[in-house]
Amino acid sequence: MTADEFRKAAHAAIEESPFCPPIALLMLTRAVISYNDNITNFPVLPKIEPGYLAPQLPTTAPDSPQAWSEIQPDIAEKIIPGLTHWQSPNFMNFYPAGVTYPSILGEMYSAAFTAPAFNWLCSPACTELETIVLDWLAKALSLPAAFLSGSPSGGGGVIQGSASEAIVTCMVAARERYVHAKCDAEGLANPSPERNARIAILRPKLIALSSDQTHSSTAKGAAIAGTLHRSIKTSLSQDAALTGSSLESTLDQVRSEGLEPYYITLTIGTTSTCSIDDFPSLNTILSQPSNTQIWQHIDAAYAGSALILPEHASTISPMTAQADSFNVNMHKWLLVNFDASCLFVQNRNHLTRALSISAPYYQNSQSDAGLVTDYRDWQIPLGRRFRALKIWFVMRSYGLQGMRDYITYTCKLGDMFAESVRSRPDLFEIIAKPQFALTCFRVRPSALSNSEGDPVVVDGTTDPAFDPAFDPATASEEQVETEANAVTKEITDLINASGEVYIGNSSVAGKTFIRVVSANPQAQEIYVRRCWDIVLKTTEEVLEKRRQGKSKKIA
Amino acid sequence: MTADEFRKAAHAAIEESPFCPPIALLMLTRAVISYNDNITNFPVLPKIEPGYLAPQLPTTAPDSPQAWSEIQPDIAEKIIPGLTHWQSPNFMNFYPAGVTYPSILGEMYSAAFTAPAFNWLCSPACTELETIVLDWLAKALSLPAAFLSGSPSGGGGVIQGSASEAIVTCMVAARERYVHAKCDAEGLANPSPERNARIAILRPKLIALSSDQTHSSTAKGAAIAGTLHRSIKTSLSQDAALTGSSLESTLDQVRSEGLEPYYITLTIGTTSTCSIDDFPSLNTILSQPSNTQIWQHIDAAYAGSALILPEHASTISPMTAQADSFNVNMHKWLLVNFDASCLFVQNRNHLTRALSISAPYYQNSQSDAGLVTDYRDWQIPLGRRFRALKIWFVMRSYGLQGMRDYITYTCKLGDMFAESVRSRPDLFEIIAKPQFALTCFRVRPSALSNSEGDPVVVDGTTDPAFDPAFDPATASEEQVETEANAVTKEITDLINASGEVYIGNSSVAGKTFIRVVSANPQAQEIYVRRCWDIVLKTTEEVLEKRRQGKSKKIA
Repeated sequence: MTADEFRKAAHAAIEESPFCPPIALLMLTRAVISYNDNITNFPVLPKIEPGYLAPQLPTTAPDSPQAWSEIQPDIAEKIIPGLTHWQSPNFMNFYPAGVTYPSILGEMYSAAFTAPAFNWLCSPACTELETIVLDWLAKALSLPAAFLSGSPSGGGGVIQGSASEAIVTCMVAARERYVHAKCDAEGLANPSPERNARIAILRPKLIALSSDQTHSSTAKGAAIAGTLHRSIKTSLSQDAALTGSSLESTLDQVRSEGLEPYYITLTIGTTSTCSIDDFPSLNTILSQPSNTQIWQHIDAAYAGSALILPEHASTISPMTAQADSFNVNMHKWLLVNFDASCLFVQNRNHLTRALSISAPYYQNSQSDAGLVTDYRDWQIPLGRRFRALKIWFVMRSYGLQGMRDYITYTCKLGDMFAESVRSRPDLFEIIAKPQFALTCFRVRPSALSNSEGDPVVVDGTTDPAFDPAFDPATASEEQVETEANAVTKEITDLINASGEVYIGNSSVAGKTFIRVVSANPQAQEIYVRRCWDIVLKTTEEVLEKRRQGKSKKIA
Repeated sequence: MTADEFRKAAHAAIEESPFCPPIALLMLTRAVISYNDNITNFPVLPKIEPGYLAPQLPTTAPDSPQAWSEIQPDIAEKIIPGLTHWQSPNFMNFYPAGVTYPSILGEMYSAAFTAPAFNWLCSPACTELETIVLDWLAKALSLPAAFLSGSPSGGGGVIQGSASEAIVTCMVAARERYVHAKCDAEGLANPSPERNARIAILRPKLIALSSDQTHSSTAKGAAIAGTLHRSIKTSLSQDAALTGSSLESTLDQVRSEGLEPYYITLTIGTTSTCSIDDFPSLNTILSQPSNTQIWQHIDAAYAGSALILPEHASTISPMTAQADSFNVNMHKWLLVNFDASCLFVQNRNHLTRALSISAPYYQNSQSDAGLVTDYRDWQIPLGRRFRALKIWFVMRSYGLQGMRDYITYTCKLGDMFAESVRSRPDLFEIIAKPQFALTCFRVRPSALSNSEGDPVVVDGTTDPAFDPAFDPATASEEQVETEANAVTKEITDLINASGEVYIGNSSVAGKTFIRVVSANPQAQEIYVRRCWDIVLKTTEEVLEKRRQGKSKKIA
């Protein structure tokens, strides 16, 4: 199509062109921009019931082609009312999953260039750009040089679909590395029936470790890899971080049961409270000779993005030096849309040894000569999308400075929210150190009225400081805890039902709390302040209603 | 942004807007259309050497933001020269990975709505539309009703990233189903230490089966799931299909070794020759009581699309009735861009039992009440993109009739190419039944000149019919086979090096052959005829050169 033909097409009636004409791309462009600009007009959580969509659509695909003009209105009428608007600045649950214009451009080009680039030859630019931009990212995060593609240890990065996919990929590599290292040490020939027999005995004993705050994908990964898994208890008095001493006693325990720890997930930014595991003490334990065969994976899916700021990189990046693998999701907090989960390893051979399968249709002179990277051997699926494009576009469009500004700004919004919560110690207690744009808090037990409608007394005072180690000992203490949890949940549900803002709920060590994250690309002070107003107002209303309810009961 | 503001922005200087302005989306739209329209001007296989890109790009990301006008030229100058153009009508290797405008629109909307929709509540429209369009697809392919979402058996479809991901997902489900069914049958309490001990003994004995023509992802899936795998030999005399009798003897064999077959991949459209396994005889074996615990997965990644035609559906669809799972990649031959791998199961519970992990942050009233589908429990990764949109757009834009027309047309192109090959029995032999737009052929051994420059004599004639069961018995027969393979490979390499057309090479039962597939959305008669001309000319040149070389050697 020439430029002239394109211009003509733009003026032609859309109905005339049956197979979704180019003009539809222009209409869509406008629609996407308009969605973005009007996003705060939608309830952030959709007001629909399960099964809302089926009655609105036919039960079979149409037999005849439909014009785009017939399709597009359905997006506004049927799809958008059923979306949860992750891009809304009023979305403050989970961690963000942002999208930006350069990222959309990357998706569009990637689709236009569609290639399931399972090896280098299947689209060299796809592989080579991926290696380059992941090196850019590793440097931007100040990761140890061993994670770079040219490192002597054989390091490098690969884009995975999600942190969970990255984790199970590493677990499979870890499982194979562990059993083969053991067989090598025992002098068993490879391959040999003796080795296979030994592996069959070893595998059922393998156990993956993580803390009780590690994302659920570690437990799922262990199930997929067919190994055992144990989670190690953390405590709020240690900021929900995994510590060297608890790891050490768990290692002793599992070994005393005849099990063999082969893998551990360490976390920078846990799912519930964004805590950082205690790397100094963990690294001491994990560098003991008996533990060096344990694969160390660092899940920094969300908070890893903060390493783009020098103040975080200087303290956190060195902690990663011992890790076999490190993962950060640019699709959470670095302006690239889902999916862009960036996995770095210090030695690619561990992945390729576990995951490489040859077949005649994969053969080509460049791969056979070992000149190129075939990323299919670094991952579970065979085919791969050209995801490096969107990372390239975003890193260039924003520049490192733009990315740092964004992280700094959203952290400041988080600090502002935490300050608001702190300003009302009569109502709320903060349950873990607010950081990385996340605040975790709940209704302070002392803010609840007792059955007489009076403030409850906890620990001999009506306004105790939050004691993370507090473990209810008496039935009445237990009841106060349960009530604080229930009220906190009630407040969350009321707020979310309003559709004005979508906040989170989680629980750690028996304490239910509210999570507020202000970190998506559209986050702004005005929305964070409004969220606080809603939280405060709803809390006061719920507490007042309870007081009245109890007073009435007494009366 | 109002329509007026948008118009103004379109006229503003692009350089002024640092963060990739909306106008870039318009520029991109034109660029994408232009790429599509000019695709035949590019060499289909890029003329670059490994490592071509790194010297052209900086080693770190820029610190300051770059304008889109600075970024976009790099796509034409640095990326496109390194692309393998899967969308070119001259791309005839592997199987296609097509893209269409409505599919690009789907990707763009999906990016705009970015949500890692791991459960229903995280974006209800994402889950509900997926269920609906996969039902549309199942009906369009005439799959048995048990694969529909409302089936009494608990069936339904889910979009996976690739057929390989679908396979490993099913294998993990199969593994768990098998060991737990066995433990149940043995009366072991669940959970119990006895059951765990039994599972530890059972798992290393599990073996997955497939034919030697099954895609490599079955072997890889078995490695990931930590089970054994054995491939069953096929023969060209049986069209490279897996048969009931060879399966039966393999089952006897593995059981005699103390192993337990738990899973098998059956294929509709094998990777090398697009063969269909012999379902009637396989179904007889697999329905024997001793074999019903074996999970039957049908990999119809490519050829499954042909079931949209009634003539194929009537014969092939009923064969799938016994399968636990069935997979077709719309991103190959059904006009949706990669990734859109559609997996159907007869009972979702087998997936969710193996893959569901609970965590406090996933809890919501709809999921807790069992009212909704949480697709994260049907797959390995946690997060998921809104891929149903592009399927919806494509099925509506083309209509079933448009999709049928496309499959019919590309099959006709394939028949045309096969006819051309058949028209030169002096040069070529077809090594497997041409079907589904694929022709597999190689240089006929009798076309090779012997050391005196004369035609070689095989089987007592210079022009024998192709005998798929032919097994070279003598050294000279062996040598002719080896030469035919080498010449066939030489022809392929020469053609691909030209950059004019990209064809495939594979080998089955020791025979190397050329694969030509004419099935991407831009396929046209003119390109298929041109490909044939190139194949013919190159073959004649190679054979002539060999004759001359040998004559010279004699002279």
